[in-house]
Amino acid sequence: MSTDLTAPRWLDEEEQQAWRSYLRATRLLEVALDRDLLAHGVQLSEYEIMSMLSENPRRRLRMSEIASLVVQSRSRLTHTASRLEKRGFVRREPCEGDRRGVELVLTDEGYAAVRAIAPLHVASVRAALTDHLTRAQLLALGTAMQAIADGIEATGACEEVAEGVLPA
Amino acid sequence: MSTDLTAPRWLDEEEQQAWRSYLRATRLLEVALDRDLLAHGVQLSEYEIMSMLSENPRRRLRMSEIASLVVQSRSRLTHTASRLEKRGFVRREPCEGDRRGVELVLTDEGYAAVRAIAPLHVASVRAALTDHLTRAQLLALGTAMQAIADGIEATGACEEVAEGVLPA
Repeated sequence: MSTDLTAPRWLDEEEQQAWRSYLRATRLLEVALDRDLLAHGVQLSEYEIMSMLSENPRRRLRMSEIASLVVQSRSRLTHTASRLEKRGFVRREPCEGDRRGVELVLTDEGYAAVRAIAPLHVASVRAALTDHLTRAQLLALGTAMQAIADGIEATGACEEVAEGVLPA
Repeated sequence: MSTDLTAPRWLDEEEQQAWRSYLRATRLLEVALDRDLLAHGVQLSEYEIMSMLSENPRRRLRMSEIASLVVQSRSRLTHTASRLEKRGFVRREPCEGDRRGVELVLTDEGYAAVRAIAPLHVASVRAALTDHLTRAQLLALGTAMQAIADGIEATGACEEVAEGVLPA
């Protein structure tokens, strides 16, 4: 009469197919976007941070906030920030009002780089992602992905990233 | 009367929202799955290769084939294979009939590890992905992702990965 609560709920064939398509597409997409950006001298992870800073009215964000936004460990973000700093695209400054915190600031040179690369990057996102879907498919994909993000965040994985618990 | 073919096709607000949800969810999902597997001593990239080998009747695959299946550069795959080899989970052997090629072979110890971890990994995929979607949403997600993968593969990005053109 007992139910085995520990029996694995294996994926059935259709679920398995969906999961494999997901894994393969996410990787191919990352490779395609990264390849296109590398032709312009930046990695996807670098561009994303610069783009995020460029959208902030003060062109600056706390490192902890960026880590949470891009879902990266603090140590990986620190490496990325160092590379961008060497190229003159960002600089690190103590937070106003909180000297222990660090903010990343987009320089004029970094802002110019984002403006130059943005049209190429959007063309790349169109070619690799949106051009392969109908608008309805794209919006449904967005809704499903938002449900996944919300579901995972409810478990607290996100805070672990921000706190640097996870490996670089 | 002329059309500016080079004008960027910027994402509109809904497309932008879908794209951001996609980026955030893929990363959170990777973090969540990796975290769960690390608790059992393997990384997602390591488990995936072992799992793939375990499904092959001969428990062996060519390195070039694995690189293409998991969409990894050859150099990154070589590093992963070395780590797995040190732990006794795989060994490298020359291909039968083609001494220049290398095959990765899952050892009995590696097979036992996959069998032990698989139920935990599927629970992790359920908790992080499928439990947040209806079945219809999951299958639609799979269809959309397959369209993206097919679209990108038609551009040839995949061969570049297999040939090790891309960075590790």
